[in-house]
Amino acid sequence: MARWQPGAAQRLVVAAVDLFTEQGYDATTVAQIAERAGVTKSTFFRHFSDKRELLVAGQETLSRLLAEGVAEAPADASPLEAVAAGLERASGAMGPANRELGPRLKAAVAASTELQERDALKSVGLAAAMTTALVAREVPEPTAHLAAEMGVLAFKQGYARWSEGGDRDDEEPLAPYALAALEDLRAATASLG
Amino acid sequence: MARWQPGAAQRLVVAAVDLFTEQGYDATTVAQIAERAGVTKSTFFRHFSDKRELLVAGQETLSRLLAEGVAEAPADASPLEAVAAGLERASGAMGPANRELGPRLKAAVAASTELQERDALKSVGLAAAMTTALVAREVPEPTAHLAAEMGVLAFKQGYARWSEGGDRDDEEPLAPYALAALEDLRAATASLG
Repeated sequence: MARWQPGAAQRLVVAAVDLFTEQGYDATTVAQIAERAGVTKSTFFRHFSDKRELLVAGQETLSRLLAEGVAEAPADASPLEAVAAGLERASGAMGPANRELGPRLKAAVAASTELQERDALKSVGLAAAMTTALVAREVPEPTAHLAAEMGVLAFKQGYARWSEGGDRDDEEPLAPYALAALEDLRAATASLG
Repeated sequence: MARWQPGAAQRLVVAAVDLFTEQGYDATTVAQIAERAGVTKSTFFRHFSDKRELLVAGQETLSRLLAEGVAEAPADASPLEAVAAGLERASGAMGPANRELGPRLKAAVAASTELQERDALKSVGLAAAMTTALVAREVPEPTAHLAAEMGVLAFKQGYARWSEGGDRDDEEPLAPYALAALEDLRAATASLG
């Protein structure tokens, strides 16, 4: 994609999320998104098939990285250690631009049932990717489901805290936030009763 | 609702789910749903505001029952015991008609991204209802989130097994299936590592 216009995809995502927040998902057109991002409509369509696709674009990458991290964890890693490896791998792909996007995306999702549904399905997809990768490591099904759900919760909580931080160093990575959230959940298993 | 036409709401749900499966969610109209259910369009609109609402109708009841069960569990109940009380309360509202609907609903959801998104948001809503009820019992946040997610997983798995059962006794309740799934998940916490 970079051979057409470096950074255009990222600018389109930011423009779209802001427009969704300002005027709603339904009322936002591809033409408006392209204009806000300072690109042509044909540039939009080189990157995304429609405004919906713009929101799922990152999901496949994230699912793949989570699954790869789980798959490539050492053979003797426990289920949660494998999940932690998945979180580290996926976190590595999230840079300052993703951090900047967090609060905007949260506002857009809060304002739109359609985006809430889209966001909820995204979580289901991430959990399914990790469950499959854990089952491939011969983790029994209930443990795999549980560990994967904990991984998704930890990724979401870690991302929220990372991107909401006020006085922040842009070089700070997401991984420690996600791993701390996973550790909180692991510790919580002792008090479930 | 029963003063207009007993069972109409249930017939409308079954008709809608079958039509969604046969021809897709987008292509299905309120008029077609009403015709298949053998009622008029105005009867449809006495029960539901649109075809989307038809799918969320049960969700608020389910969320309320889960939260009530959690809230009314004995003061000394552990987080998972409170979740189990929520599952028992909600399961009590699911009868033979809900069991019959399970495989049809599964087919409809498998066929439609829009229904998958709707279904995913429903799970998020159920988890949020239980999390809130657990936090009100002074369960710390990570434990409350985790216990609530386990409750939703258990409810979904229990419902799937209950409604997929081949040689089934229509009087058999959902609760034992949901509680067995929760117990599987509780046991799985010991092998997370």
